[in-house]
Amino acid sequence: MADGRKKKFIKELQEKSRVRKESGLFTVDGPKMCREVPVELVREVYVTESFLKSSHAEICSDLLKYKGFETVTDSDMKQISDTVTPQGILVVAEQIKTKGIRDIVSFNGTDAPLLLILETLQDPGNLGTIIRAAEAAGVTGIIMNDTTADVYSPKVVRSTMGSLFRVPFIYVTDVIKACDLLKRGEFTEGNKVDILAADLNGNTDYTLYDYRKPCAFMIGNESKGLSEEAKSCASKRIRIPMEGKVESLNAAMAATVIGFEAARQRRL
Amino acid sequence: MADGRKKKFIKELQEKSRVRKESGLFTVDGPKMCREVPVELVREVYVTESFLKSSHAEICSDLLKYKGFETVTDSDMKQISDTVTPQGILVVAEQIKTKGIRDIVSFNGTDAPLLLILETLQDPGNLGTIIRAAEAAGVTGIIMNDTTADVYSPKVVRSTMGSLFRVPFIYVTDVIKACDLLKRGEFTEGNKVDILAADLNGNTDYTLYDYRKPCAFMIGNESKGLSEEAKSCASKRIRIPMEGKVESLNAAMAATVIGFEAARQRRL
Repeated sequence: MADGRKKKFIKELQEKSRVRKESGLFTVDGPKMCREVPVELVREVYVTESFLKSSHAEICSDLLKYKGFETVTDSDMKQISDTVTPQGILVVAEQIKTKGIRDIVSFNGTDAPLLLILETLQDPGNLGTIIRAAEAAGVTGIIMNDTTADVYSPKVVRSTMGSLFRVPFIYVTDVIKACDLLKRGEFTEGNKVDILAADLNGNTDYTLYDYRKPCAFMIGNESKGLSEEAKSCASKRIRIPMEGKVESLNAAMAATVIGFEAARQRRL
Repeated sequence: MADGRKKKFIKELQEKSRVRKESGLFTVDGPKMCREVPVELVREVYVTESFLKSSHAEICSDLLKYKGFETVTDSDMKQISDTVTPQGILVVAEQIKTKGIRDIVSFNGTDAPLLLILETLQDPGNLGTIIRAAEAAGVTGIIMNDTTADVYSPKVVRSTMGSLFRVPFIYVTDVIKACDLLKRGEFTEGNKVDILAADLNGNTDYTLYDYRKPCAFMIGNESKGLSEEAKSCASKRIRIPMEGKVESLNAAMAATVIGFEAARQRRL
Protein backbone atom coordinates (compact mmCIF):
# COMPACT_ATOMS: atom_id res chain seq x y z
CA MET A 1 0.00 0.00 0.00
CA ALA A 2 2.45 2.55 -1.23
CA ASP A 3 -0.14 5.22 -1.89
CA GLY A 4 0.09 7.75 0.92
CA ARG A 5 -2.95 9.67 -0.34
CA LYS A 6 -5.12 6.60 -0.01
CA LYS A 7 -4.02 6.05 3.57
CA LYS A 8 -4.72 9.65 4.37
CA PHE A 9 -8.19 9.41 2.83
CA ILE A 10 -9.06 6.32 4.86
CA LYS A 11 -7.94 8.04 8.07
CA GLU A 12 -10.07 11.03 7.17
CA LEU A 13 -13.07 8.80 6.57
CA GLN A 14 -12.70 7.67 10.16
CA GLU A 15 -12.03 11.02 11.70
CA LYS A 16 -14.13 13.48 9.75
CA SER A 17 -17.88 13.32 9.43
CA ARG A 18 -17.63 15.88 6.62
CA VAL A 19 -15.37 13.63 4.54
CA ARG A 20 -17.81 10.74 5.06
CA LYS A 21 -20.74 12.91 4.00
CA GLU A 22 -19.03 14.28 0.91
CA SER A 23 -17.75 10.92 -0.30
CA GLY A 24 -20.75 8.85 0.76
CA LEU A 25 -18.28 6.30 2.16
CA PHE A 26 -17.31 4.96 5.58
CA THR A 27 -14.99 2.33 7.04
CA VAL A 28 -15.69 -0.93 8.84
CA ASP A 29 -13.03 -2.62 10.95
CA GLY A 30 -12.50 -6.21 12.12
CA PRO A 31 -13.83 -9.56 10.83
CA LYS A 32 -17.05 -9.68 12.82
CA MET A 33 -18.26 -6.33 11.56
CA CYS A 34 -16.84 -6.64 8.04
CA ARG A 35 -18.81 -9.80 7.30
CA GLU A 36 -22.00 -7.89 8.18
CA VAL A 37 -21.53 -5.33 5.40
CA PRO A 38 -23.97 -6.09 2.56
CA VAL A 39 -21.82 -7.15 -0.37
CA GLU A 40 -23.27 -4.52 -2.72
CA LEU A 41 -21.97 -1.78 -0.41
CA VAL A 42 -18.39 -3.05 -0.26
CA ARG A 43 -16.01 -0.80 -2.19
CA GLU A 44 -12.53 -1.85 -1.03
CA VAL A 45 -11.18 -4.60 1.23
CA TYR A 46 -7.78 -4.40 2.95
CA VAL A 47 -6.28 -7.40 4.75
CA THR A 48 -2.93 -8.31 6.27
CA GLU A 49 -0.97 -11.46 5.43
CA SER A 50 -1.39 -12.74 8.96
CA PHE A 51 -5.16 -12.22 8.75
CA LEU A 52 -5.34 -14.39 5.62
CA LYS A 53 -3.59 -17.18 7.49
CA SER A 54 -5.74 -16.82 10.62
CA SER A 55 -8.99 -18.56 11.50
CA HIS A 56 -10.74 -15.19 11.12
CA ALA A 57 -10.32 -15.31 7.37
CA GLU A 58 -12.97 -18.05 7.36
CA ILE A 59 -15.58 -15.67 8.81
CA CYS A 60 -15.00 -13.32 5.92
CA SER A 61 -14.54 -15.93 3.19
CA ASP A 62 -17.48 -14.71 1.08
CA LEU A 63 -16.24 -11.18 1.22
CA LEU A 64 -12.71 -12.19 0.19
CA LYS A 65 -13.97 -14.49 -2.55
CA TYR A 66 -16.47 -12.21 -4.22
CA LYS A 67 -15.04 -8.78 -3.75
CA GLY A 68 -11.30 -9.19 -4.11
CA PHE A 69 -8.92 -7.55 -1.67
CA GLU A 70 -5.64 -5.76 -1.31
CA THR A 71 -2.98 -7.19 0.99
CA VAL A 72 -1.28 -4.60 3.17
CA THR A 73 1.53 -4.79 5.73
CA ASP A 74 0.83 -4.88 9.46
CA SER A 75 2.29 -1.41 9.71
CA ASP A 76 -0.03 -0.07 6.98
CA MET A 77 -3.02 -1.68 8.70
CA LYS A 78 -2.05 -0.04 11.95
CA GLN A 79 -2.03 3.29 10.17
CA ILE A 80 -5.40 2.92 8.47
CA SER A 81 -7.27 1.20 11.30
CA ASP A 82 -8.85 3.33 14.00
CA THR A 83 -8.50 0.63 16.67
CA VAL A 84 -5.50 0.20 18.96
CA THR A 85 -5.05 -3.45 18.02
CA PRO A 86 -6.25 -3.83 14.43
CA GLN A 87 -7.76 -7.21 13.62
CA GLY A 88 -6.29 -7.40 10.13
CA ILE A 89 -9.27 -6.51 7.95
CA LEU A 90 -10.75 -3.15 6.99
CA VAL A 91 -13.51 -2.42 4.51
CA VAL A 92 -14.32 0.86 2.80
CA ALA A 93 -18.06 0.77 2.14
CA GLU A 94 -20.74 2.91 0.58
CA GLN A 95 -23.29 4.43 2.92
CA ILE A 96 -26.76 2.90 2.90
CA LYS A 97 -29.16 4.66 0.56
CA THR A 98 -32.57 5.52 1.95
CA LYS A 99 -35.31 6.85 -0.28
CA GLY A 100 -37.35 8.63 2.34
CA ILE A 101 -39.37 8.43 5.54
CA ARG A 102 -42.05 6.39 3.78
CA ASP A 103 -39.56 3.53 3.25
CA ILE A 104 -38.56 3.60 6.89
CA VAL A 105 -42.12 3.63 8.13
CA SER A 106 -43.38 0.81 5.93
CA PHE A 107 -40.23 -1.30 6.13
CA ASN A 108 -40.92 -5.00 5.59
CA GLY A 109 -44.53 -4.12 4.81
CA THR A 110 -45.47 -3.53 8.45
CA ASP A 111 -48.79 -1.80 9.07
CA ALA A 112 -47.96 -1.22 12.74
CA PRO A 113 -44.54 0.44 12.71
CA LEU A 114 -42.67 0.84 15.97
CA LEU A 115 -40.43 3.81 15.31
CA LEU A 116 -37.66 5.36 17.34
CA ILE A 117 -37.01 9.07 16.89
CA LEU A 118 -33.73 10.50 18.18
CA GLU A 119 -33.30 14.21 18.71
CA THR A 120 -29.73 15.52 19.00
CA LEU A 121 -28.32 12.38 20.57
CA GLN A 122 -24.62 13.15 20.68
CA ASP A 123 -22.59 10.34 22.19
CA PRO A 124 -21.47 7.83 19.51
CA GLY A 125 -21.32 4.96 22.02
CA ASN A 126 -24.88 5.68 23.15
CA LEU A 127 -26.10 5.87 19.58
CA GLY A 128 -24.53 2.53 18.66
CA THR A 129 -25.93 0.82 21.74
CA ILE A 130 -29.37 2.25 21.03
CA ILE A 131 -29.38 0.99 17.44
CA ARG A 132 -28.39 -2.50 18.64
CA ALA A 133 -31.02 -2.53 21.41
CA ALA A 134 -33.60 -1.14 18.99
CA GLU A 135 -33.10 -4.02 16.59
CA ALA A 136 -33.37 -6.51 19.45
CA ALA A 137 -36.60 -4.87 20.63
CA GLY A 138 -38.13 -5.05 17.16
CA VAL A 139 -38.02 -1.34 16.36
CA THR A 140 -38.98 -1.15 12.67
CA GLY A 141 -37.16 2.09 11.84
CA ILE A 142 -35.16 4.96 13.27
CA ILE A 143 -35.55 8.64 12.42
CA MET A 144 -32.85 11.06 13.57
CA ASN A 145 -32.45 14.80 13.27
CA ASP A 146 -29.25 16.00 11.66
CA THR A 147 -27.70 17.20 14.92
CA THR A 148 -27.64 13.58 16.11
CA ALA A 149 -24.19 11.91 15.97
CA ASP A 150 -23.10 10.39 12.65
CA VAL A 151 -23.98 6.67 12.51
CA TYR A 152 -21.03 6.14 10.18
CA SER A 153 -18.41 7.19 12.72
CA PRO A 154 -16.21 4.16 13.56
CA LYS A 155 -17.33 4.10 17.20
CA VAL A 156 -21.02 3.95 16.29
CA VAL A 157 -20.44 1.35 13.59
CA ARG A 158 -18.55 -0.83 16.08
CA SER A 159 -21.02 -0.52 18.91
CA THR A 160 -24.03 -1.39 16.73
CA MET A 161 -22.48 -4.86 16.25
CA GLY A 162 -24.01 -5.02 12.77
CA SER A 163 -27.49 -3.70 13.60
CA LEU A 164 -26.60 -0.65 11.52
CA PHE A 165 -27.06 -2.79 8.41
CA ARG A 166 -30.36 -4.27 9.53
CA VAL A 167 -32.45 -1.51 11.09
CA PRO A 168 -33.55 1.07 8.52
CA PHE A 169 -32.76 4.63 9.51
CA ILE A 170 -32.92 8.13 8.09
CA TYR A 171 -31.63 11.60 9.00
CA VAL A 172 -34.10 14.46 8.63
CA THR A 173 -33.57 18.20 8.92
CA ASP A 174 -36.86 18.92 10.63
CA VAL A 175 -37.87 16.21 13.03
CA ILE A 176 -40.97 18.14 14.17
CA LYS A 177 -42.29 18.29 10.62
CA ALA A 178 -41.63 14.56 10.26
CA CYS A 179 -43.64 13.94 13.45
CA ASP A 180 -46.51 16.03 12.13
CA LEU A 181 -46.63 14.01 8.93
CA LEU A 182 -46.48 10.75 10.89
CA LYS A 183 -49.32 11.91 13.14
CA ARG A 184 -51.50 12.67 10.14
CA GLY A 185 -50.86 9.21 8.69
CA GLU A 186 -49.05 10.70 5.69
CA PHE A 187 -46.85 7.62 5.19
CA THR A 188 -49.32 5.00 6.41
CA GLU A 189 -52.37 5.47 4.20
CA GLY A 190 -54.13 7.59 6.76
CA ASN A 191 -53.31 5.19 9.60
CA LYS A 192 -52.16 7.68 12.23
CA VAL A 193 -48.87 7.13 14.03
CA ASP A 194 -48.92 8.08 17.71
CA ILE A 195 -45.95 10.16 18.82
CA LEU A 196 -44.64 9.54 22.35
CA ALA A 197 -42.07 11.75 24.06
CA ALA A 198 -39.83 10.20 26.72
CA ASP A 199 -39.87 12.89 29.40
CA LEU A 200 -38.72 12.84 33.03
CA ASN A 201 -41.79 14.94 33.85
CA GLY A 202 -44.17 13.00 31.64
CA ASN A 203 -47.61 12.16 33.04
CA THR A 204 -48.05 8.66 31.59
CA ASP A 205 -46.26 5.63 33.04
CA TYR A 206 -44.53 4.18 29.97
CA THR A 207 -45.91 0.71 30.72
CA LEU A 208 -49.51 1.94 30.54
CA TYR A 209 -49.37 2.87 26.87
CA ASP A 210 -50.49 0.35 24.21
CA TYR A 211 -47.50 -0.08 21.90
CA ARG A 212 -49.32 -2.49 19.60
CA LYS A 213 -50.63 0.57 17.78
CA PRO A 214 -48.52 2.26 15.09
CA CYS A 215 -46.33 4.49 17.23
CA ALA A 216 -43.01 6.29 17.52
CA PHE A 217 -41.14 7.06 20.71
CA MET A 218 -38.79 10.03 20.90
CA ILE A 219 -35.58 10.13 22.93
CA GLY A 220 -33.73 13.40 23.37
CA ASN A 221 -30.24 14.67 24.00
CA GLU A 222 -28.17 13.06 26.80
CA SER A 223 -28.09 16.10 29.03
CA LYS A 224 -30.98 18.29 27.89
CA GLY A 225 -33.58 15.69 26.96
CA LEU A 226 -36.12 16.53 24.24
CA SER A 227 -36.69 20.09 23.04
CA GLU A 228 -39.92 21.83 24.01
CA GLU A 229 -41.10 21.67 20.38
CA ALA A 230 -40.55 17.93 20.29
CA LYS A 231 -42.43 17.45 23.54
CA SER A 232 -45.25 19.66 22.34
CA CYS A 233 -45.79 17.72 19.15
CA ALA A 234 -46.12 14.41 21.01
CA SER A 235 -49.54 13.01 21.76
CA LYS A 236 -48.30 11.57 25.06
CA ARG A 237 -45.38 12.29 27.36
CA ILE A 238 -44.25 9.02 28.84
CA ARG A 239 -42.20 8.68 31.99
CA ILE A 240 -40.15 5.77 33.30
CA PRO A 241 -40.95 5.59 37.03
CA MET A 242 -37.74 5.41 39.04
CA GLU A 243 -37.07 4.19 42.55
CA GLY A 244 -34.41 5.61 44.85
CA LYS A 245 -32.85 8.97 44.17
CA VAL A 246 -31.82 8.45 40.56
CA GLU A 247 -32.33 11.70 38.65
CA SER A 248 -32.44 10.17 35.21
CA LEU A 249 -31.51 7.12 33.18
CA ASN A 250 -29.01 7.60 30.41
CA ALA A 251 -30.51 7.93 26.93
CA ALA A 252 -29.49 4.42 25.85
CA MET A 253 -31.05 2.90 28.96
CA ALA A 254 -34.29 4.85 28.51
CA ALA A 255 -34.56 3.81 24.85
CA THR A 256 -33.91 0.19 25.81
CA VAL A 257 -36.44 0.13 28.63
CA ILE A 258 -39.18 1.61 26.44
CA GLY A 259 -38.26 -0.54 23.43
CA PHE A 260 -38.44 -3.78 25.40
CA GLU A 261 -41.75 -2.83 27.00
CA ALA A 262 -43.10 -2.33 23.48
CA ALA A 263 -41.63 -5.71 22.51
CA ARG A 264 -43.23 -7.39 25.52
CA GLN A 265 -46.65 -6.00 24.64
CA ARG A 266 -46.28 -6.90 20.99
CA ARG A 267 -45.67 -10.53 21.99
CA LEU A 268 -48.91 -10.66 24.03
CA MET B 1 0.04 20.65 48.67
CA ALA B 2 3.77 20.31 48.95
CA ASP B 3 3.68 16.69 50.03
CA GLY B 4 4.69 14.59 47.05
CA ARG B 5 3.95 11.34 48.88
CA LYS B 6 0.36 12.35 49.43
CA LYS B 7 -0.10 13.13 45.75
CA LYS B 8 1.40 9.79 44.85
CA PHE B 9 -0.90 7.98 47.26
CA ILE B 10 -4.00 9.66 45.81
CA LYS B 11 -2.94 8.69 42.28
CA GLU B 12 -2.42 5.13 43.44
CA LEU B 13 -5.86 5.08 45.02
CA GLN B 14 -7.23 5.83 41.58
CA GLU B 15 -5.07 3.49 39.60
CA LYS B 16 -4.60 0.46 41.82
CA SER B 17 -7.38 -1.70 43.13
CA ARG B 18 -4.87 -3.28 45.54
CA VAL B 19 -4.06 0.09 47.14
CA ARG B 20 -7.78 0.78 47.55
CA LYS B 21 -8.33 -2.63 49.15
CA GLU B 22 -5.40 -2.33 51.54
CA SER B 23 -6.22 1.20 52.65
CA GLY B 24 -9.99 0.85 52.61
CA LEU B 25 -10.12 4.23 50.85
CA PHE B 26 -11.14 5.55 47.43
CA THR B 27 -11.44 8.90 45.65
CA VAL B 28 -14.45 10.82 44.42
CA ASP B 29 -14.08 13.57 41.82
CA GLY B 30 -16.23 16.59 40.91
CA PRO B 31 -18.93 18.50 42.80
CA LYS B 32 -21.92 16.40 41.74
CA MET B 33 -20.40 13.16 42.96
CA CYS B 34 -18.63 14.62 46.00
CA ARG B 35 -21.84 15.94 47.50
CA GLU B 36 -23.26 12.40 47.35
CA VAL B 37 -20.59 10.98 49.65
CA PRO B 38 -22.12 10.32 53.10
CA VAL B 39 -20.41 12.76 55.45
CA GLU B 40 -19.24 10.03 57.84
CA LEU B 41 -17.18 8.49 55.03
CA VAL B 42 -15.35 11.68 54.05
CA ARG B 43 -11.71 11.59 55.07
CA GLU B 44 -10.09 14.45 53.12
CA VAL B 45 -11.40 17.22 50.84
CA TYR B 46 -9.22 18.99 48.28
CA VAL B 47 -10.44 22.09 46.43
CA THR B 48 -8.93 24.71 44.16
CA GLU B 49 -9.23 28.47 44.73
CA SER B 50 -11.26 28.85 41.56
CA PHE B 51 -13.66 26.12 42.72
CA LEU B 52 -14.32 28.00 45.96
CA LYS B 53 -15.24 31.10 43.96
CA SER B 54 -17.44 29.19 41.51
CA SER B 55 -21.13 28.42 41.67
CA HIS B 56 -20.22 24.75 42.19
CA ALA B 57 -19.01 25.47 45.70
CA GLU B 58 -22.66 25.97 46.64
CA ILE B 59 -23.50 22.35 45.73
CA CYS B 60 -20.87 21.16 48.16
CA SER B 61 -21.43 23.75 50.89
CA ASP B 62 -22.29 21.18 53.58
CA LEU B 63 -19.21 19.19 52.78
CA LEU B 64 -16.96 22.26 52.92
CA LYS B 65 -18.62 23.55 56.09
CA TYR B 66 -18.60 20.39 58.17
CA LYS B 67 -15.54 18.55 57.02
CA GLY B 68 -12.94 21.22 56.42
CA PHE B 69 -10.82 21.20 53.29
CA GLU B 70 -7.37 21.81 51.92
CA THR B 71 -6.90 24.34 49.13
CA VAL B 72 -4.60 23.15 46.35
CA THR B 73 -3.30 24.80 43.18
CA ASP B 74 -4.86 24.06 39.80
CA SER B 75 -1.69 22.24 38.86
CA ASP B 76 -1.85 20.02 41.97
CA MET B 77 -5.50 19.26 41.26
CA LYS B 78 -4.62 18.28 37.73
CA GLN B 79 -2.08 15.87 39.13
CA ILE B 80 -4.35 14.22 41.69
CA SER B 81 -7.55 14.12 39.62
CA ASP B 82 -8.10 11.23 37.24
CA THR B 83 -10.22 13.29 34.84
CA VAL B 84 -8.87 15.26 31.89
CA THR B 85 -10.56 18.47 33.00
CA PRO B 86 -10.74 18.37 36.81
CA GLN B 87 -13.75 20.14 38.28
CA GLY B 88 -11.86 21.53 41.26
CA ILE B 89 -12.94 19.22 44.06
CA LEU B 90 -11.71 15.78 45.07
CA VAL B 91 -12.63 13.76 48.14
CA VAL B 92 -10.74 10.87 49.69
CA ALA B 93 -13.38 8.68 51.31
CA GLU B 94 -13.62 5.51 53.33
CA GLN B 95 -15.18 2.51 51.61
CA ILE B 96 -18.69 1.56 52.70
CA LYS B 97 -18.75 -1.06 55.44
CA THR B 98 -21.08 -4.00 54.91
CA LYS B 99 -21.69 -6.53 57.65
CA GLY B 100 -22.76 -9.43 55.50
CA ILE B 101 -25.23 -10.83 53.00
CA ARG B 102 -28.01 -10.73 55.59
CA ASP B 103 -27.81 -6.91 55.68
CA ILE B 104 -27.99 -6.70 51.91
CA VAL B 105 -30.92 -9.06 51.68
CA SER B 106 -33.03 -7.44 54.39
CA PHE B 107 -32.06 -3.86 53.55
CA ASN B 108 -34.73 -1.35 54.61
CA GLY B 109 -36.64 -4.20 56.24
CA THR B 110 -37.94 -5.60 52.94
CA ASP B 111 -39.48 -9.07 53.07
CA ALA B 112 -39.47 -9.35 49.28
CA PRO B 113 -35.92 -8.53 48.24
CA LEU B 114 -35.15 -7.97 44.57
CA LEU B 115 -31.47 -8.84 44.35
CA LEU B 116 -29.00 -8.52 41.52
CA ILE B 117 -26.10 -10.95 41.42
CA LEU B 118 -23.13 -10.16 39.19
CA GLU B 119 -20.64 -12.83 38.21
CA THR B 120 -17.28 -11.66 36.85
CA LEU B 121 -18.60 -8.50 35.27
CA GLN B 122 -15.43 -6.80 34.09
CA ASP B 123 -16.09 -3.51 32.39
CA PRO B 124 -16.10 -0.62 34.88
CA GLY B 125 -18.44 1.48 32.71
CA ASN B 126 -20.92 -1.40 32.50
CA LEU B 127 -20.76 -1.97 36.24
CA GLY B 128 -21.42 1.69 37.02
CA THR B 129 -24.33 1.86 34.60
CA ILE B 130 -25.80 -1.32 36.05
CA ILE B 131 -25.64 0.01 39.61
CA ARG B 132 -27.38 3.21 38.53
CA ALA B 133 -30.08 1.34 36.58
CA ALA B 134 -30.48 -1.12 39.46
CA GLU B 135 -31.25 1.67 41.90
CA ALA B 136 -33.76 3.16 39.45
CA ALA B 137 -35.44 -0.22 39.03
CA GLY B 138 -35.77 -0.70 42.78
CA VAL B 139 -33.17 -3.44 43.18
CA THR B 140 -32.78 -3.83 46.95
CA GLY B 141 -29.21 -5.14 46.97
CA ILE B 142 -26.32 -6.26 44.78
CA ILE B 143 -24.10 -9.29 45.37
CA MET B 144 -20.91 -9.60 43.31
CA ASN B 145 -18.20 -12.22 43.15
CA ASP B 146 -14.67 -11.01 43.71
CA THR B 147 -13.67 -11.30 40.06
CA THR B 148 -16.17 -8.57 39.25
CA ALA B 149 -14.64 -5.12 38.63
CA ASP B 150 -13.90 -2.95 41.67
CA VAL B 151 -16.82 -0.60 42.39
CA TYR B 152 -14.36 1.87 43.88
CA SER B 153 -12.44 2.43 40.66
CA PRO B 154 -12.91 6.06 39.54
CA LYS B 155 -14.75 5.07 36.38
CA VAL B 156 -17.32 2.99 38.22
CA VAL B 157 -17.80 5.64 40.90
CA ARG B 158 -18.40 8.26 38.22
CA SER B 159 -20.78 6.22 36.13
CA THR B 160 -22.98 5.24 39.10
CA MET B 161 -23.85 8.95 39.46
CA GLY B 162 -24.15 8.46 43.23
CA SER B 163 -26.13 5.19 43.23
CA LEU B 164 -23.03 3.57 44.71
CA PHE B 165 -23.87 5.25 48.01
CA ARG B 166 -27.52 4.26 47.96
CA VAL B 167 -27.78 0.65 46.76
CA PRO B 168 -26.31 -1.79 49.28
CA PHE B 169 -23.77 -4.17 47.79
CA ILE B 170 -21.33 -6.85 48.87
CA TYR B 171 -18.48 -8.83 47.33
CA VAL B 172 -18.41 -12.55 48.08
CA THR B 173 -15.77 -15.15 47.30
CA ASP B 174 -18.19 -17.92 46.47
CA VAL B 175 -21.28 -16.68 44.67
CA ILE B 176 -22.66 -20.21 44.24
CA LYS B 177 -22.60 -20.79 47.98
CA ALA B 178 -24.34 -17.45 48.50
CA CYS B 179 -27.04 -18.53 46.04
CA ASP B 180 -27.52 -21.81 47.87
CA LEU B 181 -28.00 -19.99 51.16
CA LEU B 182 -30.45 -17.57 49.54
CA LYS B 183 -32.41 -20.44 48.03
CA ARG B 184 -32.76 -22.11 51.43
CA GLY B 185 -34.04 -18.87 52.96
CA GLU B 186 -31.00 -18.63 55.22
CA PHE B 187 -31.14 -14.82 55.37
CA THR B 188 -34.91 -14.43 55.13
CA GLU B 189 -36.27 -16.49 58.00
CA GLY B 190 -36.94 -19.47 55.83
CA ASN B 191 -38.58 -17.35 53.12
CA LYS B 192 -36.89 -18.83 50.05
CA VAL B 193 -35.29 -16.52 47.49
CA ASP B 194 -35.70 -17.66 43.90
CA ILE B 195 -32.51 -17.54 41.83
CA LEU B 196 -32.86 -16.57 38.17
CA ALA B 197 -30.06 -16.87 35.64
CA ALA B 198 -30.07 -14.54 32.62
CA ASP B 199 -29.14 -16.90 29.82
CA LEU B 200 -29.30 -16.51 26.02
CA ASN B 201 -30.47 -20.12 25.86
CA GLY B 202 -32.85 -19.87 28.80
CA ASN B 203 -36.27 -21.48 28.46
CA THR B 204 -38.38 -18.90 30.29
CA ASP B 205 -39.35 -15.57 28.70
CA TYR B 206 -38.15 -13.08 31.33
CA THR B 207 -41.54 -11.31 31.29
CA LEU B 208 -43.36 -14.48 32.31
CA TYR B 209 -41.73 -14.77 35.72
CA ASP B 210 -43.41 -13.25 38.80
CA TYR B 211 -40.85 -10.85 40.26
CA ARG B 212 -43.09 -9.87 43.16
CA LYS B 213 -41.67 -12.89 44.99
CA PRO B 214 -38.34 -12.64 46.84
CA CYS B 215 -35.90 -13.21 44.00
CA ALA B 216 -32.41 -12.59 42.69
CA PHE B 217 -31.40 -12.31 39.04
CA MET B 218 -27.87 -13.19 37.96
CA ILE B 219 -25.98 -11.48 35.15
CA GLY B 220 -22.70 -12.91 33.90
CA ASN B 221 -19.50 -11.80 32.27
CA GLU B 222 -19.71 -9.53 29.19
CA SER B 223 -18.38 -12.07 26.73
CA LYS B 224 -18.84 -15.45 28.39
CA GLY B 225 -22.12 -14.95 30.23
CA LEU B 226 -22.75 -16.92 33.42
CA SER B 227 -20.64 -19.93 34.40
CA GLU B 228 -22.19 -23.39 34.17
CA GLU B 229 -22.21 -23.65 37.98
CA ALA B 230 -24.10 -20.37 38.27
CA LYS B 231 -26.64 -21.48 35.69
CA SER B 232 -27.05 -24.85 37.39
CA CYS B 233 -27.80 -23.37 40.78
CA ALA B 234 -30.58 -21.16 39.39
CA SER B 235 -34.18 -22.28 39.70
CA LYS B 236 -35.02 -20.69 36.35
CA ARG B 237 -33.04 -19.66 33.29
CA ILE B 238 -34.63 -16.55 31.87
CA ARG B 239 -34.17 -15.31 28.35
CA ILE B 240 -34.83 -11.91 26.81
CA PRO B 241 -36.51 -12.61 23.47
CA MET B 242 -34.80 -10.68 20.70
CA GLU B 243 -35.99 -9.66 17.26
CA GLY B 244 -33.77 -9.32 14.23
CA LYS B 245 -30.35 -10.90 14.14
CA VAL B 246 -28.95 -9.52 17.38
CA GLU B 247 -26.82 -12.16 19.04
CA SER B 248 -26.92 -10.72 22.53
CA LEU B 249 -27.59 -7.58 24.51
CA ASN B 250 -24.71 -6.14 26.45
CA ALA B 251 -24.67 -7.00 30.16
CA ALA B 252 -25.82 -3.54 31.26
CA MET B 253 -28.74 -3.62 28.84
CA ALA B 254 -29.80 -7.10 29.94
CA ALA B 255 -29.68 -6.11 33.62
CA THR B 256 -31.69 -2.98 32.88
CA VAL B 257 -34.35 -4.78 30.84
CA ILE B 258 -34.88 -7.42 33.53
CA GLY B 259 -34.73 -4.90 36.38
CA PHE B 260 -37.40 -2.67 34.84
CA GLU B 261 -39.67 -5.62 34.09
CA ALA B 262 -39.43 -6.52 37.79
CA ALA B 263 -40.18 -2.87 38.64
CA ARG B 264 -43.21 -2.85 36.35
CA GLN B 265 -44.63 -5.97 37.96
CA ARG B 266 -43.94 -4.69 41.45
CA ARG B 267 -46.02 -1.58 40.68
CA LEU B 268 -49.03 -3.69 39.60
